[in-house]
Amino acid sequence: MASFDIAHLTQSLHAVRREWREAHGRSQEPGAREFPSREALATIVDQLKGALFPMRLGPHDLRQESEDIFVAHQLDTALHALLGQIRLELRLGGAHSSLSADAMALDIARAFAEALPQIRRLLDSDVLAAFHGDPAARSVDEVLLCYPGVLAMVHHRLAHQLYLLGQPLLARIVAELAHGQTGIDIHPGAQIGRGFFIDHGTGVVIGETAIIGERVRLYQAVTLGAKRFPTDEQGQLRKGLPRHPVVEDDVVIYAGATILGRVTLGRGAVIGGNVWVTYDVPAGVHVTQAHARERRQPAQEVAA
Amino acid sequence: MASFDIAHLTQSLHAVRREWREAHGRSQEPGAREFPSREALATIVDQLKGALFPMRLGPHDLRQESEDIFVAHQLDTALHALLGQIRLELRLGGAHSSLSADAMALDIARAFAEALPQIRRLLDSDVLAAFHGDPAARSVDEVLLCYPGVLAMVHHRLAHQLYLLGQPLLARIVAELAHGQTGIDIHPGAQIGRGFFIDHGTGVVIGETAIIGERVRLYQAVTLGAKRFPTDEQGQLRKGLPRHPVVEDDVVIYAGATILGRVTLGRGAVIGGNVWVTYDVPAGVHVTQAHARERRQPAQEVAA
Amino acid sequence: MASFDIAHLTQSLHAVRREWREAHGRSQEPGAREFPSREALATIVDQLKGALFPMRLGPHDLRQESEDIFVAHQLDTALHALLGQIRLELRLGGAHSSLSADAMALDIARAFAEALPQIRRLLDSDVLAAFHGDPAARSVDEVLLCYPGVLAMVHHRLAHQLYLLGQPLLARIVAELAHGQTGIDIHPGAQIGRGFFIDHGTGVVIGETAIIGERVRLYQAVTLGAKRFPTDEQGQLRKGLPRHPVVEDDVVIYAGATILGRVTLGRGAVIGGNVWVTYDVPAGVHVTQAHARERRQPAQEVAA
Amino acid sequence: MASFDIAHLTQSLHAVRREWREAHGRSQEPGAREFPSREALATIVDQLKGALFPMRLGPHDLRQESEDIFVAHQLDTALHALLGQIRLELRLGGAHSSLSADAMALDIARAFAEALPQIRRLLDSDVLAAFHGDPAARSVDEVLLCYPGVLAMVHHRLAHQLYLLGQPLLARIVAELAHGQTGIDIHPGAQIGRGFFIDHGTGVVIGETAIIGERVRLYQAVTLGAKRFPTDEQGQLRKGLPRHPVVEDDVVIYAGATILGRVTLGRGAVIGGNVWVTYDVPAGVHVTQAHARERRQPAQEVAA
Amino acid sequence: MASFDIAHLTQSLHAVRREWREAHGRSQEPGAREFPSREALATIVDQLKGALFPMRLGPHDLRQESEDIFVAHQLDTALHALLGQIRLELRLGGAHSSLSADAMALDIARAFAEALPQIRRLLDSDVLAAFHGDPAARSVDEVLLCYPGVLAMVHHRLAHQLYLLGQPLLARIVAELAHGQTGIDIHPGAQIGRGFFIDHGTGVVIGETAIIGERVRLYQAVTLGAKRFPTDEQGQLRKGLPRHPVVEDDVVIYAGATILGRVTLGRGAVIGGNVWVTYDVPAGVHVTQAHARERRQPAQEVAA
Amino acid sequence: MASFDIAHLTQSLHAVRREWREAHGRSQEPGAREFPSREALATIVDQLKGALFPMRLGPHDLRQESEDIFVAHQLDTALHALLGQIRLELRLGGAHSSLSADAMALDIARAFAEALPQIRRLLDSDVLAAFHGDPAARSVDEVLLCYPGVLAMVHHRLAHQLYLLGQPLLARIVAELAHGQTGIDIHPGAQIGRGFFIDHGTGVVIGETAIIGERVRLYQAVTLGAKRFPTDEQGQLRKGLPRHPVVEDDVVIYAGATILGRVTLGRGAVIGGNVWVTYDVPAGVHVTQAHARERRQPAQEVAA
Repeated sequence: MASFDIAHLTQSLHAVRREWREAHGRSQEPGAREFPSREALATIVDQLKGALFPMRLGPHDLRQESEDIFVAHQLDTALHALLGQIRLELRLGGAHSSLSADAMALDIARAFAEALPQIRRLLDSDVLAAFHGDPAARSVDEVLLCYPGVLAMVHHRLAHQLYLLGQPLLARIVAELAHGQTGIDIHPGAQIGRGFFIDHGTGVVIGETAIIGERVRLYQAVTLGAKRFPTDEQGQLRKGLPRHPVVEDDVVIYAGATILGRVTLGRGAVIGGNVWVTYDVPAGVHVTQAHARERRQPAQEVAA
Repeated sequence: MASFDIAHLTQSLHAVRREWREAHGRSQEPGAREFPSREALATIVDQLKGALFPMRLGPHDLRQESEDIFVAHQLDTALHALLGQIRLELRLGGAHSSLSADAMALDIARAFAEALPQIRRLLDSDVLAAFHGDPAARSVDEVLLCYPGVLAMVHHRLAHQLYLLGQPLLARIVAELAHGQTGIDIHPGAQIGRGFFIDHGTGVVIGETAIIGERVRLYQAVTLGAKRFPTDEQGQLRKGLPRHPVVEDDVVIYAGATILGRVTLGRGAVIGGNVWVTYDVPAGVHVTQAHARERRQPAQEVAA
Repeated sequence: MASFDIAHLTQSLHAVRREWREAHGRSQEPGAREFPSREALATIVDQLKGALFPMRLGPHDLRQESEDIFVAHQLDTALHALLGQIRLELRLGGAHSSLSADAMALDIARAFAEALPQIRRLLDSDVLAAFHGDPAARSVDEVLLCYPGVLAMVHHRLAHQLYLLGQPLLARIVAELAHGQTGIDIHPGAQIGRGFFIDHGTGVVIGETAIIGERVRLYQAVTLGAKRFPTDEQGQLRKGLPRHPVVEDDVVIYAGATILGRVTLGRGAVIGGNVWVTYDVPAGVHVTQAHARERRQPAQEVAA
Repeated sequence: MASFDIAHLTQSLHAVRREWREAHGRSQEPGAREFPSREALATIVDQLKGALFPMRLGPHDLRQESEDIFVAHQLDTALHALLGQIRLELRLGGAHSSLSADAMALDIARAFAEALPQIRRLLDSDVLAAFHGDPAARSVDEVLLCYPGVLAMVHHRLAHQLYLLGQPLLARIVAELAHGQTGIDIHPGAQIGRGFFIDHGTGVVIGETAIIGERVRLYQAVTLGAKRFPTDEQGQLRKGLPRHPVVEDDVVIYAGATILGRVTLGRGAVIGGNVWVTYDVPAGVHVTQAHARERRQPAQEVAA
Repeated sequence: MASFDIAHLTQSLHAVRREWREAHGRSQEPGAREFPSREALATIVDQLKGALFPMRLGPHDLRQESEDIFVAHQLDTALHALLGQIRLELRLGGAHSSLSADAMALDIARAFAEALPQIRRLLDSDVLAAFHGDPAARSVDEVLLCYPGVLAMVHHRLAHQLYLLGQPLLARIVAELAHGQTGIDIHPGAQIGRGFFIDHGTGVVIGETAIIGERVRLYQAVTLGAKRFPTDEQGQLRKGLPRHPVVEDDVVIYAGATILGRVTLGRGAVIGGNVWVTYDVPAGVHVTQAHARERRQPAQEVAA
Repeated sequence: MASFDIAHLTQSLHAVRREWREAHGRSQEPGAREFPSREALATIVDQLKGALFPMRLGPHDLRQESEDIFVAHQLDTALHALLGQIRLELRLGGAHSSLSADAMALDIARAFAEALPQIRRLLDSDVLAAFHGDPAARSVDEVLLCYPGVLAMVHHRLAHQLYLLGQPLLARIVAELAHGQTGIDIHPGAQIGRGFFIDHGTGVVIGETAIIGERVRLYQAVTLGAKRFPTDEQGQLRKGLPRHPVVEDDVVIYAGATILGRVTLGRGAVIGGNVWVTYDVPAGVHVTQAHARERRQPAQEVAA
């Protein structure tokens, strides 16, 4: 006798899938899976890392004389693969003819490509920030190879570009690849200026409409999230409104601090560890737990 | 001269192993390693994911017409491999003859197989909850592919079934695979109702005897843990007693909140961010930091 | 027409790299990449794990009669590979001739090798601590295979040895490999006594100059960090000074607690969940949130 | 200075490709390579082998209870992949619209699929023939696993079906995969009856229009080739004409024999080692070197 | 509509398998495949090659100081794997209880292991013979790495030992692995003395009962086969009788020569290219095509 | 008790190796293996194939617009890897200082690189010759993908260049890679003109000093070998002398023919199947078996 009644089990799972598809108007699935692939994007991001930092994140035996040849090949491979993934996301939208989707995909991929030199410049500034921000760092190379905060920013700056170009799903996958590896969860929509540094990083959450200036420094478990006032709403969440903090240049936010809602931390402000902030902080002010406690509002919930 | 004195080093490590084995009464190891394998379970879980969601988590070129054939093959492969792992865990218990262990293993694997359709139904409800709970989600597909909270629940619902069937070690390995990937640490013993959603997720810890109702929503860094009163004990930990919270239907717990001990959060309660709760919360009540602070007990420790 | 103007893009990225190199005095890169490799160290650590715990972390079909042969081969392979990585780190320092760097590398690798039996002994004590510290643990084998806290300690004890031997970059990479997998961030410089156990673990951060005694237990999201008093400094960070806590034997620190600065937690002290401590705690004292709040200093920042 | 002038070299190779394409009217290559793939066909043939002989050429841990599930999955995977390769070959022909090529490809793939049970039957007869024909064979399983002559026939019977269905290029690739592995070169066009056995096999060549009856046995280095009379032709090779031998039932041809042209070896004939035959051999006759020498024609060339 | 009716096709193939099994009394297959594996043996042979010639056929970065450690590990791994394959072949015989088969398998594997040093010595003599026999050879290393004739002898000497120890199926698989790679087909039963060299090699066939002395040299396409006199037999092939040539010391056989039947080539004889020999050749005699033709018997067939 | 006495066995093998090394004056092996690698050369040849025929032997999804980028990258990777292999062969020679060997290696690798465009041109002529020479060929693409004779020529033309540049060992390895795959054994020293075609190919052997003109066609099992007259020599083989045939333009040699010694086949000569030729053949003459037999010399041996 067989160990398992696979045929029956297969039928039961088939029935559950049919239920789901009928409930969601999907009984007509396309022939083949037409969905962006986490594995494909992981490969693309790895290739782009090699193209951006060939002598550090490229193959271990790369020689400087071969850099440009390697970079050209990585770009060529990665951009064509990305083009394919962009097509898949555009088609999911469903409004496009296949032809116009292809043309649009090419425009988007080209715009993404053109942004790469500027992304490298921004990442250089992040690497320097990490090097200067951590007394333990011995070289910029160490920072690029070891620091999870730098890895998260490489992913974020690529993901943000995809987000700006109208590819939120691809952007999200790129961001989650870093989140899984580092415990740092930055929404691709967040706008982050040059010289940004997250130390340690595990548990950091940065929301979609956050705006962060230049030379900002964060430690682990910092949340830049949204406030929610359920009683003020008639059961309807309004989307897309600015709901996360604005952090101006040269701000430092220590570990475990929580900043909620569309508040502004003024230039050079310092937020102490574990502090809870739901109000504007003027430029240059140091907020400690003691200060913070006095200012707390009576009812609040946190979600990024 | 050789670079290393490998023979001497090997002997030293042999001596340390012998010390350990003698100290733990294990000088008679079995001939071969008879222990469940993390790698084997990782493969099994991947195959089960493909069997549960063939067009999303199966091979990228799967076509709908081939779904049932693919599902049958994945099930067949995964269940036989799981059967082997169950045998290993049963033998570790040591009380069984090889023959009865094999029969018992088959019963367990079959019971696990029969639970799969219901597990898929529960996961469908979790996917929907994530889709409705996150204003940024664009499709149920995106949620299934990207959200660490959904990944954690796929692992948990499989791990919980193994736990119920008396395979705590296999269950634990399945849970830790998701913990490593997502930073979400759900004990396989936790009972979780349909439509459960964890947003962001890094740092969430849910203890073994927690009971969670339907449509509950959690944010990052929430702990559903146990209280400990060391002075009340005569040096003896009592195991297996209910020691984690009961969370009723439609509760929302915001980021960083800590709920400790066998307390009950009543239906529809809302726990604010960073709040510390060690008491029952009535249905429908919103707990904020201000409320919470007034209620705090003088001495407590937290462990999940 | 080509989809992408790869030649132009390659030139632009070349220009950015040249900018960077000129700005950092690196226009004369060596011919080939001479930098330790994350992948190489991941392989080395895996081999050392197999050499330390052959019947648990070695190949699944290893038999006890072959243990020593397997261990010898793993050691031989891992130590020669490590020797190569040590050479790369020494050369980065730049002060050494190639010849003396090679001799020095061999000395370091040999010293590392000689420390392995003692590292195994320490790890045995950590495994036992985890087994006794978690009421849910069923066997020491389960602990070794499943617990992220144990994985983090395997990496830490190897990384710490590299740190002591003057290889901070290799040590850092080994530590980050565990950080990525477990969410536990232990600086390789931290001194940790035998029988150390971290439960759950996500979000734990332990700083470079922390000193931890024997039989200490930590839960998730505990920080042993540094305090910063920016107003006390004339813009100059002083490096290498003791700036993280000293934790004496038998201390327990519950989830989310934050201990900052060169303070001492006396033998047997217990720190409650989420407690914030920036002062010495006498031996045997239990610190709760209520106690802690009364003692708080007015201004502080947290960074590990 | 760079080791190689890659740019110059790339240009030179580009120039050679352009010369070739212009000389062959191919300056307008399609965007992507549209050509059947040797690797893809190797995978397909391996999957079909598993589907035909699941307990011998399938995965080593297959159990009989899972045979049909495994076979269904292999067929499903292999036939869809083959469908893709057939489309590529049809498009190379160039006369078809994409739509009609797809429909035609499906018809061909279905016809191929329907032939598989009969192919298995024929291969069973070949396996038996090998078992009975070689005194050293101990079991039919040994024959299926070890004998290059059987491997060549598995490939040939699949390749011949593709040839019959108008896919000469795919058929050729399948045949060459076996040729490379065994040194046996059977043109996919050759018609071969049941119970065919080639012993040793290296150097055997069988031409496109050869017709072989039932229970025929061949040894190594046998050629069933074509004669060529260059002086009889006006510089024009005529294609497709029957030009290779007809070998009737129960014939045996010993090692190194060469049979040329559209001659017939009658039922039960035996051709001795190294014999050269360019004439009909009546049924039952044994041809030896001595006989053969007397019959030789004055001028001949051999090509299969 | 589905592209293929996989269910129907699976049933048809099931029916063909059932036919076959019923026809061969195998309707009761064992649960799992219990048959030696070509892939497993390929791995074992590769490991043994590394153990026999560590600095040439071992890993490219092996250092001499690590040779013994590497060799011990390869032996340990390869011999245990071989033990498993021997068990499978013994069980195929069917006469043994599982217990006695295991004990017998261990005896066989140990005897095989003890023969390895002598096999290495013989192979050294073959390598030297190739080096001295080919004017183009520049070093013994080149010979070991490049010459197909040497590869064939490595396989043969291992296969012959398995054959002597009563494992004809394993021996055959090892031999066929070399046959597929080199086109040289040596039956594992053939007895071959030291210093044997085959140049070029493609098409060489050496039969089961051939006996070859020391320092013999062969070129491509030489057959040492059996004669068959079908009219002398009453339809019954007699097995195991000596039926292949005896080749004494220092014989040279040039390309394409065919030696058939239990004849003896005396010490130092030289057989010219393409010569056909079915009679004893005295020591020291040179046989040319002219001589050979005069001696030919009227009727003969060739099979190895 | 252990299954095998690995320590004893390791010692025995050590003793055999020591014997060998002492006998050959090699007790002082270098620390690490310094020998060209078959695997490395296999990879290099595959990369060069892709660089020479990007749209046919490059990656299956290459697009024409990316050809040059792909080619540049393949060349860069392959040539640097080849440079490393050339260094290893030069050092084996032993006469060079490390420095001058490196400079010499670079000169050789550059000369090899410069020959690639001409090699592609020659291979184009071979592909055309195969297409025109085989009535069954349907396209030049089929020929390039399927024909073992073309594969052998790709390897030969690369190997011959290495041979000309003084790298006989690398050349030999490249040639043997094709020999193993095709059964065609062309010595890298052989000089072969444009438009060369080998049909079927198994068993072809072409010797080191053979010279072949343009548009020559060969079939399977043809030998262009050396004669040996042992009685003419005083026990000393003289190396490097021209000893293989000269084949002028437009010659055709049918299957199984053997041409021995420094004889010349004149322009347009045709050699019939299985013919044995040890004398000059005038231009335009057709040699058949009948003719050949009359001319045979009394004593000859064949070796390539």
